[in-house]
Formats: sequence, structure tokens, C-alpha cells
Amino acid sequence: MPAPTSPLTVGELAEEEILARILARLGPSPVDVGPGDDAAVLRLADPRVVVTTDTLVHGPDFRLAWSRGRDLGAKAAAVNLADVAAMGARPVALFVALMMPDDTTIEFVEELATGLREACEELAPGCAVAGGDLTVSDTLAIAVTAIGDLPAGRRPVLRSGARSGQVVAIAGETGAAAAGLALLFERFRDPAGAAVPVDGALLDEREASLVSAQLRPCPPIAAGVRAADAGATAMMDVSDGLIRDARRMAAASGVSIDLRTAALGPDPALALSGGEDHALLAVFPAEAPIPAEFRVIGTVGDRAAGLLLVDGVAESSDGGWDPYRDWDGQAG
Amino acid sequence: MPAPTSPLTVGELAEEEILARILARLGPSPVDVGPGDDAAVLRLADPRVVVTTDTLVHGPDFRLAWSRGRDLGAKAAAVNLADVAAMGARPVALFVALMMPDDTTIEFVEELATGLREACEELAPGCAVAGGDLTVSDTLAIAVTAIGDLPAGRRPVLRSGARSGQVVAIAGETGAAAAGLALLFERFRDPAGAAVPVDGALLDEREASLVSAQLRPCPPIAAGVRAADAGATAMMDVSDGLIRDARRMAAASGVSIDLRTAALGPDPALALSGGEDHALLAVFPAEAPIPAEFRVIGTVGDRAAGLLLVDGVAESSDGGWDPYRDWDGQAG
Repeated sequence: MPAPTSPLTVGELAEEEILARILARLGPSPVDVGPGDDAAVLRLADPRVVVTTDTLVHGPDFRLAWSRGRDLGAKAAAVNLADVAAMGARPVALFVALMMPDDTTIEFVEELATGLREACEELAPGCAVAGGDLTVSDTLAIAVTAIGDLPAGRRPVLRSGARSGQVVAIAGETGAAAAGLALLFERFRDPAGAAVPVDGALLDEREASLVSAQLRPCPPIAAGVRAADAGATAMMDVSDGLIRDARRMAAASGVSIDLRTAALGPDPALALSGGEDHALLAVFPAEAPIPAEFRVIGTVGDRAAGLLLVDGVAESSDGGWDPYRDWDGQAG
Repeated sequence: MPAPTSPLTVGELAEEEILARILARLGPSPVDVGPGDDAAVLRLADPRVVVTTDTLVHGPDFRLAWSRGRDLGAKAAAVNLADVAAMGARPVALFVALMMPDDTTIEFVEELATGLREACEELAPGCAVAGGDLTVSDTLAIAVTAIGDLPAGRRPVLRSGARSGQVVAIAGETGAAAAGLALLFERFRDPAGAAVPVDGALLDEREASLVSAQLRPCPPIAAGVRAADAGATAMMDVSDGLIRDARRMAAASGVSIDLRTAALGPDPALALSGGEDHALLAVFPAEAPIPAEFRVIGTVGDRAAGLLLVDGVAESSDGGWDPYRDWDGQAG
């Protein structure tokens, strides 16, 4: 019987070998010119390109004890796809800068690549990783840039287009990811406060789905283009909590927004405060047909620019809870 | 007299405040929709977009003791601009994911933003930072994604287009950045091997220019489009050394390349091995007018795919020297 061997790490392979293993898991690249040249060349629907970048860093944004490589890859893709979708655009490609300590296992890197591919296939068919960069770093981090395009002649949907009398709607959940994070902090830390691996046996079905919403969010990417098709006047992805983000939209549009708790499910307080689900918040003209993915949760008014009301009462709090912010990054 | 105060750090300001200070130094953004929405929207010359991403990480790629914020920002821009230029494309915008420890000074961040702007203005007028992301990290890192466009109807210039009988030319230097890095390692480390700040008084004029080539390279970005205009059949940026990169071009094109040391200046060995200057290596048809920025350094032959010759003799070495690779990342 062979002796157990320690897992192969990034530090033991040449960059070309690591890259080959990643490319084998990414599937076909949606490009005219792909990996191997100085830059990629992509063909878009028209000469406008939509670009966004978002980074996940070990410590402030995730814990390896909690996040498997596949979930992390999928999340890194999803949060960027959501920003493209929130413009009413179609995601076309992702570019991934991967910074890894030498002791990162190759299995983790391969799983990360698999997660990137899975999220694209599930959430934005036709989009895929089209390039990237590998670097050694003491801190594991994934910086993703997403590229999207707009249907010819269609304007991007901004945060600033909401007008009084229009309706506010949302696609996707809010609150589940925050509830999942709270569960991780409550149940999966050792006495010193460091993250410990998630034991699924300690979670009931609902709890498991909340944790999954945190570790591997599934934002409604296709709803972005459909909202634009239906005439959405404003849109953004909810990443910092519904209260905070709806207030930002109200401020950008110079309007007030009034949300109705009766439309926010069984736990309106959580739905109002939780971010990281990357739901799409959109505003439609009163007479517009609202796409099936969206449900109406409020109205746009003209009380005061940037005023956020809940059931007609001005809301002063941010409603947010961010445990990572005050958590010492060294442990876990 | 007020007591001396410690410099303001990233950890003491909210993300919005840091962002405002960065934006104030970046200058106008070349976009239809700019910072503040979920994604940026850029208008290109035609529906093809050129995209590349490259990362600088503290430790493997730079040392804060050696690199000032301005130089680092300029270098992060320059290395990405060079990859766009190497496709025969025009850089349009940069997106910057900045990962910073909480104790990073605000002055450093402001200088970094200034360096990004300066490099765009100097090397690629019209290009500017158009978006990005700020994240806390234990390790300082800058991941830049550069977006470029191609003149309507023009094909990108790949590595694979070199053909036997054509001439090999280069724009920009090779070897200076490597010589500068060697000087940094020789002169500016303490007895324990950690990097110490560069004292300009210890460098003569030539040495100072070599160190500057390492810390703040100035690749010939505009020469990329001019090479394409002149009919370049292959092009790439020289980042890993002329021998290694010319061999890659020969392999991609299925040809041999023969370089002439007489055309490589006073120190051909250094010019052949040094990378990181991000010179542009291009191949032109024998009858093509070669743009003024380029000088002929060799010829394309059909001896064997991927064969690299120097003065007619097959070169087996890589010629490279990479002190960072074997240097313990903790010191400095």
C-alpha cells in the first residue's frame, strides 16, 4: 500500500502547468482570440462594452474553512454577473486575476475553476472565463472583471432613472445570505472564534439553504435583460442591504422610495437589512408589464431626494449587519 | 506647535471617502456611464473589445521599500497598456481592483492613483481609469484590467502570424529593467536581505535610469497601433526576456527566429535575457516600411517551429534571471 502523500500545491508546479489544469476545467472560451496571446478579443452586439470588477479576499470576504473552492469560484462569478445584469446587459466574459499562496492545493484551484464555469453555465449561459492572470501572494484573493454587452440601440439601465409614480420591484431573495452568514458565525467557530468547517449534519434543511445562499449566491442574472426589455427605468443589484441600496437609488434618481413590509416575506426586517444575495432591484413605469421574476415591493414618490420610507414612515437606520467588518482577520 | 501626527491610513476612513480621494486624482473618465453605477459603459470604435488583466502583488512583484506609490501606479498601468498595444489595439480604459492592508497610508493610495493617471496620459492619451474596486487585504495587491479597441475592420496582431522571410523588429528597450532590479538587489538591502529605501545619491545617472526602468517602465504603447498600421504580421510584448518571448512567438507562428547581437546595443547578453521593460517585439513583411520606433533585430526563417537562434546559432538557454522567484517574500 503506498504511503499517504500530501496534496499537490501551487508552489510545486510551474505557472503553465497550473494554467493548463485551470483551462481544462473552464470549457470553451467565448472569444475571437483566447488565452495564449497578450490579450483576448471578444465580439460584442454593438460598440458599447459594459465592464465591472469585484474582488473576494480571504479574511474580509470569505473563509477557507467555510468556502469550498467550487462555491468560492461560483460566488466570484455570480457577484460580477449581477453587476452586469443590473445594467440591463448580457454577460459575455469573465477575466480572473487569481492571487494564491504557494501552499494552495491544486485541487482547490481546479475546484475554483469548476465553480467559475458552473456559475456561468447556470446563471449566464454563453458567458465564460476568457482570460486571467496567476500570481503568488501571501493572501488568497480573486479579482474578477466581467464584460457585458447591450442589445443594439438599447440604453443601459442606470440607478438614476426612477421617477415618481413608478413601481419598485425585486427579483431574487434578500436576507437569506445574511441569515446564512449569521449561522456560520454562530455555529461554525471554535472557542477562540476561528472559523471551523461547516458540518451539514448540524443544519436543518432551511438553515442549509441559508448557508448556501451566503456561500454560493444565485442571483437572477437573466432577469436583468428581461427587466430592460420590459422598460425598467432604474436598476441595481442589492449587495449592501435593501434599505441601503434602495436609498442609494432614491438619491441617484432624486426621488423618494417607499417599501411595503407586507411584500417582503415572513421576515421583513431581515429582508430589509440583508445584503449579499445580489437580488435585482428595479423600477418600472406604473403601466409596464412586470417580468415574472419580479415582485412589486414598493413605490417611487417625490417626498425628498434620497428619502427611504418603510410602510410610509421615514427609515433612518442602515439596517445592515456586517460581522466581517469587526472580525479579526487573522483567525480562521 | 502641534504635536506630530501619524499619517492617515486606509483603516481610518470609510470606503466612500477613500474612493473620493482616488477619483479626485484620476481625472475625467472616458465613459458613457462612469463610477457610481453597478458597471461602467464604454463606447468602442467597433464591436470588438480587447481585454487583458495583470496583477502586481507585494512580495513577488514589488517591494514597498523600493516602489513609491506613484511609480507603482504607473507600472500597474504600463504593463497592462503594453498587452493591449501588443495586439495592435488602442487602450481605452483601465479597471483597477485595489487590495490594501488597513495600515496603508492614504497618501500612498493617492500617489498610486496619480501614477495610474500619469502613465495613461504619458503612454496612452485618451485612456484613463474608468472603474474599480477597493478591498481590505493583509497583502497589498493591484489587479488591473485594460480594455482596448481596434480600428474598424483591422484584425488584431497575434503572436502566430510571423512567416519565413519576414523581419523581426523591436520598439523600446530590453535589459534595462532587469539591470535595474539587479542594482536594487545589490545595493538596497540590509544585512538580513530585506529591501531598504533607494538612496538616489548612491546611483550614478546611468544606474538611476536603470532603476527607474525597473520601478516605472515606459513601454512604447503608441508604437503598437503604428506597427499594425504598417502591416505587422505578429507582435507581442517582451515581459519575460527577449529569448524566451521571441521563442514563444516562433513556436506560435511555426517558424524559426534568428536574432542578431550586433543590433542589440552595447550589452547583447543583457538585452537578450532581460524582461519587464515591456518592449514591443514585432514582425514585418520584408517590403514593409518599418515605423520609426522600431529597429530591426533579426529575421524569420523556416529551420524548425519554435527554434530561436542568435547570430545563426541555436540558443538553448532561457537566458532569464528572476531574483524574486527565489527570494523569501517575508522580508522587505
